[in-house]
Amino acid sequence: MAPQALRIALLGCGVVGTQVARLLREQADDLAARVGAPLELVGIAVRDTAVPREGVDPALLTTDADGLVERADIVVEVIGGLEPPRSLLLRAIAAGASVVTANKALLAADGPSLYAAADAAGVDVYFEAAVAGAIPIVRPVRESLAGDRVRRIVGIVNGTTNYVLDQMATEHLDLDAAVEQAQALGYAEADPTADVDGFDAAAKAAILASLAFHIRVPLEDVHREGITGVTADDVAWAASTGHVVKLLAIAERTDDGVSVRVHPALVPVSHPLAGVRGAFNAVFVEAESAGELMFYGRGAGGTPTASAVLGDVVSAARNRVLGGRGPLESSYADLPVLPASAAVTRYQVRIDVVDRPGVLAQVAAALADHGVSIEGVRQSQAPVAAPGAAHDPVAHVVITTHSATDAALAATVGAVAELDAVLAVRSVLRVEGS
Amino acid sequence: MAPQALRIALLGCGVVGTQVARLLREQADDLAARVGAPLELVGIAVRDTAVPREGVDPALLTTDADGLVERADIVVEVIGGLEPPRSLLLRAIAAGASVVTANKALLAADGPSLYAAADAAGVDVYFEAAVAGAIPIVRPVRESLAGDRVRRIVGIVNGTTNYVLDQMATEHLDLDAAVEQAQALGYAEADPTADVDGFDAAAKAAILASLAFHIRVPLEDVHREGITGVTADDVAWAASTGHVVKLLAIAERTDDGVSVRVHPALVPVSHPLAGVRGAFNAVFVEAESAGELMFYGRGAGGTPTASAVLGDVVSAARNRVLGGRGPLESSYADLPVLPASAAVTRYQVRIDVVDRPGVLAQVAAALADHGVSIEGVRQSQAPVAAPGAAHDPVAHVVITTHSATDAALAATVGAVAELDAVLAVRSVLRVEGS
Repeated sequence: MAPQALRIALLGCGVVGTQVARLLREQADDLAARVGAPLELVGIAVRDTAVPREGVDPALLTTDADGLVERADIVVEVIGGLEPPRSLLLRAIAAGASVVTANKALLAADGPSLYAAADAAGVDVYFEAAVAGAIPIVRPVRESLAGDRVRRIVGIVNGTTNYVLDQMATEHLDLDAAVEQAQALGYAEADPTADVDGFDAAAKAAILASLAFHIRVPLEDVHREGITGVTADDVAWAASTGHVVKLLAIAERTDDGVSVRVHPALVPVSHPLAGVRGAFNAVFVEAESAGELMFYGRGAGGTPTASAVLGDVVSAARNRVLGGRGPLESSYADLPVLPASAAVTRYQVRIDVVDRPGVLAQVAAALADHGVSIEGVRQSQAPVAAPGAAHDPVAHVVITTHSATDAALAATVGAVAELDAVLAVRSVLRVEGS
Repeated sequence: MAPQALRIALLGCGVVGTQVARLLREQADDLAARVGAPLELVGIAVRDTAVPREGVDPALLTTDADGLVERADIVVEVIGGLEPPRSLLLRAIAAGASVVTANKALLAADGPSLYAAADAAGVDVYFEAAVAGAIPIVRPVRESLAGDRVRRIVGIVNGTTNYVLDQMATEHLDLDAAVEQAQALGYAEADPTADVDGFDAAAKAAILASLAFHIRVPLEDVHREGITGVTADDVAWAASTGHVVKLLAIAERTDDGVSVRVHPALVPVSHPLAGVRGAFNAVFVEAESAGELMFYGRGAGGTPTASAVLGDVVSAARNRVLGGRGPLESSYADLPVLPASAAVTRYQVRIDVVDRPGVLAQVAAALADHGVSIEGVRQSQAPVAAPGAAHDPVAHVVITTHSATDAALAATVGAVAELDAVLAVRSVLRVEGS
């Protein structure tokens, strides 16, 4: 007797959805062999059935998403945004379906209530595609590292900003020109805010932190800085000191709790994350027993994302066929999410100073007064244009600190800026991964 | 009511086993939260209970492995080798236990019969630790990519040889000196044959190929070349042409079947695998939809390997608690494993020739006669010592070919070697990852 087909409902038929539909059709035999039962796409919920979708059977299209989710074993959501996805997935779960979603915004905002609903209903929630696209990172953190303790996750999880920073470094573009180029190539949206200001990365950081540390991470607790403050000068100076500038999503266990943050940072060129070029993503994980791990690949795009979605569909489908459940998403740990001021990193501070004896000593004293110790100082010989310094020569000084809290560093920079001999604080960037 | 504890039996208490025992004890609370039930280590089978093991309760040690596996829900095997592990795991499966093993040799030799026995008994076989230590690669290939089609896996899966080749490149050591250094640091065994001759990598290649392509790969069908033929000269020339020498385990889908092979190869420095240093491992995967992925981390060591084992224990334990099963390991695909001669790659051939007009044309003609086309030629100006060339100056020529079969290249090299003007064929190395 042939096993009964599993009914798949697809919500959304955009860039990812059309690829999911195509792969379900083209790889039907392989998928059936891996699941132990055929997968049948029973319908695709769209806003307008009249819009033609390449390679998609128009008979599958429906505007009745509510009705569709109630006649499916597995509901795949690739619409994005909070509503209607949230209501549709809760309805699907209540109707006994397992759900697969690529929706980072929804998971970051409301993941725990979805997980709880699924747990109560005895169904699965899979979401590999929500973080770093095609890169298997959710499954490794949830399952492969389930017997380990994650200390730190540092990810390049936004391809748009990585492309922009990469172009600034290799083509010596300024930020606006690099963003325009990314837009021309389709890597950046017409309104690039979600990427450039770090909103996309912050949602992924919240999801990674909740997986790694088994806690709830409200999105508003994620410290977020985008790349709008990164100048061509920053990128060039980074290169001259053996670093690259990357937008990092960081989830870190400390003695006091968990720090979750997104900000640009200097990464030493010898670090595996420094080699992540263009629109690629990578996630670096430090675990107590496993040590250092890195996962690298395409973080976006219809087909790569569809690959991750289908892997989840197979897992959910196998659980339906064989009984059983995917990993629990319980936030059982009791760890506070720390404020940004508590984050501890090294810093690189670039300042313009009047080039005369004793200035460096003054600067060093200002740092020492705030308990920030200096790892290294480098002074540029190149002439620096600085206002109001017609008589004294001006030097450009790059100070790298030992680890300090954000709060201590902010106070230090304030004190340094007030020194008479300091003409300008050009930039303050964190140094990660050393 | 507290859920019933799951009984864990540990077979073997060496470098990995002691760490598994320690982590089961130290992380008992976290593991119980993740599984939904406590894990209880009920016994550790060893050859001699009198040998003290640091941190291990002597009351747990037993020499009665047969008895132990019959009173466990999950049996963890970290003994290594074919027997007794094979008999013990089959006995455990027959008794209804799920099994977790780190035993690459056993899986490569006899995996399919273990999987079939587990399938018939309705229990799980997990083996993340058998390939690339702590790096999650088995789970991503089996599960995350279950909705995709893998085209190619290229892995640095043996840390010993990677350390040796890395030292040859960075410290300019010859092979013997680098192997001795690896031995002194504990990276290489007193008898380094299993690593240096590629046996270890071949077992892992067979396992990866069987996972990626859903076929049986007999170990004897894996083409295997170790690093004993790699000279300091090869490594130096690789660097001068923008490459590094790596021992690669390759599993590749072609139009005709699957090529599974282990051999040293030149990897362009721009490729992500080129940056994998020291004793680290990395596995590069090309899939039809996901595109390029890479997984990087520690490939050996007691604690990293124990991390992978414990992740598997949690998965197997969750399946016991919730019902359900891990991924099927069925070899349903009908694809032949191709002979080594059918493998298609680019080559770099280094020869010494008499430095006079027309010689390069002769060499090029010999290649063309065998259908091998040249991508580039580079001639060294440096004087080269060559026997029997007292009168004519000698040139060192590096030829890079376009893709050709192993068979065509072998015939070509034979023909080139017979040319009068060719004094010596210094080396023939494959070029991968470009």
